[in-house]
Amino acid sequence: MIVVLAPEATESQIEEVTTRLSRAGLSVHRSSGRDRTVLGVVGDASGLDPDDLGRLPGVRDVVRVEVPFRLASRQFEPTNTVVRVGSATIGESRIALIAGPCAVESEAQIMAIAEAVAAAGATVLRGGAFKPRTSPYTFQGLGEEGLRLMRRAADRVGLAVVTEALDIAHLPLVERYADMVQVGSRNMQNFPLLRAVGRSRMPVLLKRGMSATIEEWLLAAEHVLVEGNRQVALCERGIRTFEPYTRNTLDLSCVPVVQALSHLPVVVDPSHAVGLRDKVPAMARAAVAAGADGLMIEVHPQPEQAFSDGAQSVSFPELEGLVRACRKVAGAVGRVL
Amino acid sequence: MIVVLAPEATESQIEEVTTRLSRAGLSVHRSSGRDRTVLGVVGDASGLDPDDLGRLPGVRDVVRVEVPFRLASRQFEPTNTVVRVGSATIGESRIALIAGPCAVESEAQIMAIAEAVAAAGATVLRGGAFKPRTSPYTFQGLGEEGLRLMRRAADRVGLAVVTEALDIAHLPLVERYADMVQVGSRNMQNFPLLRAVGRSRMPVLLKRGMSATIEEWLLAAEHVLVEGNRQVALCERGIRTFEPYTRNTLDLSCVPVVQALSHLPVVVDPSHAVGLRDKVPAMARAAVAAGADGLMIEVHPQPEQAFSDGAQSVSFPELEGLVRACRKVAGAVGRVL
Amino acid sequence: MIVVLAPEATESQIEEVTTRLSRAGLSVHRSSGRDRTVLGVVGDASGLDPDDLGRLPGVRDVVRVEVPFRLASRQFEPTNTVVRVGSATIGESRIALIAGPCAVESEAQIMAIAEAVAAAGATVLRGGAFKPRTSPYTFQGLGEEGLRLMRRAADRVGLAVVTEALDIAHLPLVERYADMVQVGSRNMQNFPLLRAVGRSRMPVLLKRGMSATIEEWLLAAEHVLVEGNRQVALCERGIRTFEPYTRNTLDLSCVPVVQALSHLPVVVDPSHAVGLRDKVPAMARAAVAAGADGLMIEVHPQPEQAFSDGAQSVSFPELEGLVRACRKVAGAVGRVL
Amino acid sequence: MIVVLAPEATESQIEEVTTRLSRAGLSVHRSSGRDRTVLGVVGDASGLDPDDLGRLPGVRDVVRVEVPFRLASRQFEPTNTVVRVGSATIGESRIALIAGPCAVESEAQIMAIAEAVAAAGATVLRGGAFKPRTSPYTFQGLGEEGLRLMRRAADRVGLAVVTEALDIAHLPLVERYADMVQVGSRNMQNFPLLRAVGRSRMPVLLKRGMSATIEEWLLAAEHVLVEGNRQVALCERGIRTFEPYTRNTLDLSCVPVVQALSHLPVVVDPSHAVGLRDKVPAMARAAVAAGADGLMIEVHPQPEQAFSDGAQSVSFPELEGLVRACRKVAGAVGRVL
Repeated sequence: MIVVLAPEATESQIEEVTTRLSRAGLSVHRSSGRDRTVLGVVGDASGLDPDDLGRLPGVRDVVRVEVPFRLASRQFEPTNTVVRVGSATIGESRIALIAGPCAVESEAQIMAIAEAVAAAGATVLRGGAFKPRTSPYTFQGLGEEGLRLMRRAADRVGLAVVTEALDIAHLPLVERYADMVQVGSRNMQNFPLLRAVGRSRMPVLLKRGMSATIEEWLLAAEHVLVEGNRQVALCERGIRTFEPYTRNTLDLSCVPVVQALSHLPVVVDPSHAVGLRDKVPAMARAAVAAGADGLMIEVHPQPEQAFSDGAQSVSFPELEGLVRACRKVAGAVGRVL
Repeated sequence: MIVVLAPEATESQIEEVTTRLSRAGLSVHRSSGRDRTVLGVVGDASGLDPDDLGRLPGVRDVVRVEVPFRLASRQFEPTNTVVRVGSATIGESRIALIAGPCAVESEAQIMAIAEAVAAAGATVLRGGAFKPRTSPYTFQGLGEEGLRLMRRAADRVGLAVVTEALDIAHLPLVERYADMVQVGSRNMQNFPLLRAVGRSRMPVLLKRGMSATIEEWLLAAEHVLVEGNRQVALCERGIRTFEPYTRNTLDLSCVPVVQALSHLPVVVDPSHAVGLRDKVPAMARAAVAAGADGLMIEVHPQPEQAFSDGAQSVSFPELEGLVRACRKVAGAVGRVL
Repeated sequence: MIVVLAPEATESQIEEVTTRLSRAGLSVHRSSGRDRTVLGVVGDASGLDPDDLGRLPGVRDVVRVEVPFRLASRQFEPTNTVVRVGSATIGESRIALIAGPCAVESEAQIMAIAEAVAAAGATVLRGGAFKPRTSPYTFQGLGEEGLRLMRRAADRVGLAVVTEALDIAHLPLVERYADMVQVGSRNMQNFPLLRAVGRSRMPVLLKRGMSATIEEWLLAAEHVLVEGNRQVALCERGIRTFEPYTRNTLDLSCVPVVQALSHLPVVVDPSHAVGLRDKVPAMARAAVAAGADGLMIEVHPQPEQAFSDGAQSVSFPELEGLVRACRKVAGAVGRVL
Repeated sequence: MIVVLAPEATESQIEEVTTRLSRAGLSVHRSSGRDRTVLGVVGDASGLDPDDLGRLPGVRDVVRVEVPFRLASRQFEPTNTVVRVGSATIGESRIALIAGPCAVESEAQIMAIAEAVAAAGATVLRGGAFKPRTSPYTFQGLGEEGLRLMRRAADRVGLAVVTEALDIAHLPLVERYADMVQVGSRNMQNFPLLRAVGRSRMPVLLKRGMSATIEEWLLAAEHVLVEGNRQVALCERGIRTFEPYTRNTLDLSCVPVVQALSHLPVVVDPSHAVGLRDKVPAMARAAVAAGADGLMIEVHPQPEQAFSDGAQSVSFPELEGLVRACRKVAGAVGRVL
């Protein structure tokens, strides 16, 4: 951390700043120029809020050089984390395929989908039982019944299950029926929920918030990790921009960026990002080429009949085609799918 | 709602769409041109997801003409809602002044602040006991002790209290000590929390999410209203944009926009939006001129010593100056403060 | 400027960096900690691109402490610049009112508007003769004929004229007929045009680009100033965000920010920013309260009949009402209008 | 186009709207419901600004169903356009590789680069002679001398040349020395420049503006096409978002979106988008997987010594590795490179 003092800072103000930093266990190296003084701060400054320092009298600017997360960082753990979801893994050479419907709608629907996605090569079944819906007037999910149906469908074809918990109160149910809990975009900074999943024994799929920076996303993961749960996979699902054509803008650059900053695996969800069914395959291929450790794809037997988000769900034959194409790209970048 | 059919739509596809809409209790008016057919849909379509319709075969586009919220809309309730917070009100001719520290830090701090803000004309004391912090390594608030201190300080000077609940589990405590519960930006789409405050008897201050559209914000309010709690005040606190100079971009246009769309009062929080203490007064004046029903201002006895967010807190004399200036602007736009 | 070296930087790399900086006439102060070395750079570094330094081997980060513009900065010129447009001024205690149609459409239209805006208190008539239109198929402006009509109308009622030049080739014409040249949002980084208006003797109204940061905007002004033309007024007209309700998001915070960073006056154009005629008056009042040095308002005798941008134009009686309300707010903040 | 009338629209207002549309050569189909009337408008409405219609009394909303561009649309030209640049092509099964330095700096530099990029498989040499620089104090390019050096270097190794024109005045020089003219991001809506390149006989590389929607980008292409020049390639180079880690956010979804809407080829420039040299290869691979028709890569013999933008330039060995990897991905998606 570097503290830049104002040109008009007095000697006693500089001493006050230095004392504070020293008391926090940091060593301070002072560099005084003709016009201004700069303090180089060495040590673990992650407990210090740069804004706090920035308010001290005489301080002009505080520049953080280190990343603000610790357990999520590559420095802390140089080896890639492999997240285990039932018998599936995320973060190995094999790219994980997570597929399923937006929401569980009926036994017939989830059974048909489970079979189709298993046949296509998926190892994890996704599906919502508790749906976060912008409007209170649209379908909110089947609740526990949805979880039960999903578990049964997954077991029949040997898939693991990931599903979203909207609230701490959902965790026991999710833990009973699923192998991995999803924290959704809208909850990426729901800190009590992050803490609670951090205390659970389930692996976590942490979706990036719609307007979260990569740093905030990794800090959200840090909230889980700090509670002792190290099984966290990140999931990019598009960020909010001014472009109206696609639902969100898929930020694929985050894949190599996160892989450089962190040891946690990165899954890409092109379905929610793009929101346009016929554009999902191209973005899935691009995600694999960018180095994604997993793909999360929305599937529906009859996309035109889905209760929610059908506009972005691919049909069974489309999923098959998507996987076939992604398999070739995976081979081209030294991975398997 | 208007359903635009694809030029290649078949007669049976058009009938299928029409049947679905009729079954949902809507009346459909068909208009067939040379190239395409358009269906005008009349009735309450708020339970229909336009995306669902958009996926039906033969449908090219679905255009919503009505607003998707109901209870929050001006049409539903033409008279301005007045939110009662203890003995204070938000939504009357008098502009509400909500002021206090980012976080309660100590008895001395909150007592001093309560006195100062009451003297300056505030009617509601704000202060965080549960703090949502991006990093797990920074100050997270004093919890119940913070609530107790805030209540005592407020009572001594006759102020009402508003404080944030991060989770459903905090609600009983907040209800015991405070007069109004704040749902923070990061929780604007935490639907279980919205539903829970909707079932409580406390007035709600609903902050706009960092990347929430005005429509999503009003739909979040709808989740509260639909549970029976009609005492909701909205709070604009800046949206996330590309501009790095200010912490967020204060979207003051939302004040007249929300007032046209909804009967709920709008409070503006320039402190969080701008993040720069010396720019807060100008934006507070602008908020009043734009028609805001309330101001939410962060205050600290020694901003340079605050545990969190000091960069944006004004000092006591600065608050006094801000209120004096805003009072004049309020007079100029036919309000009082 | 502060140069943060990588932990693994070698001594010879550090020397290479230091030599480069010294050769550029800068003095370098070295601070070596246990883990890393930091160089504090003192002197005028505005000719150095931080990115260039950032690529040198051994360099981890370069932090600019000074603003990158010089002539536009408050440090360079502590006194507010007053821009003189014919007999009008921008940047004095009196808030300048610039008003007129989006585009000049006919003699009758511009005559009627000139009279109405002069009666309402405007001192500058605005109007487009060369229109930047997103689509090549919509009205592109009347060209020289438009300029001639605008000049005649302005002269009849004693107004100054501001109009946009889309290209260097338009400058002689604009210079012949107008008193001030506008550089539009889409041209904010058209550097040859900025340089050319910098060499002209006309005052310049420099609109902020739709996605320009405040720093880029002031650097665009610097391109004009560096050529010798110091008569530059800035104009905020909304930035592009994710919010679809308003055409753009009016960033009023930029008013106090620019006034702190620069001596150049700031005009606010709520018409283009909001794009909704009935929201223009509220945002005009807010702009005045925020400290704007001028307002730019689109006016049309029959907004419903305008060839372009009518959705955001106010009618004559609406302009009168707007000015009356803004006058009161101006009084409340110690200005006149 | 669909015109939605207000519930309170009078019959004479509806007739006025209908008359206007009919006069514009459009046929109007009226659909009156219990609450409101909707007009379906059939015919070529590209000369009508929806905003103009939206202002007419009695009109509530205007919804455009057709795309607003014509010559750029897939409907107009179902076959993919192949752009010919010297002996190279963009838009065929072979993916075009355009590579070179940000700016031409010296004969030695451009000669070395031309050889290296030709050896790596590039067919077009890129390089700036006129540089748009945010600050007036940084390197602005070598001008004509730069063009001459680039032409000589390209000729020696059999490459075509693309270079940017910042202004109409640069076009004759660019035409003399280069095979393709680039219109940069900052000039994407410089309509006089677009018109001028539309009248030239050079193929055009049209970069997407930093905050331009896909629709605005295609409308900018329309300005070129409408003047008779059909040789236009589009280039995605990142859009401006809130994410600070990468310079811009590469919007790869635009590749399949543009290919569905238009017949024009799409090139992707990951160097400017990401701004981080070590992330360029991953994004180049992703671009190929997404279906890009060309790649534009910044190269420098010693990236750490570049005059500008070195942070994003790859070295010669890095370029070779990038091409090798992209070639495999190209094979996987049925293309060659």
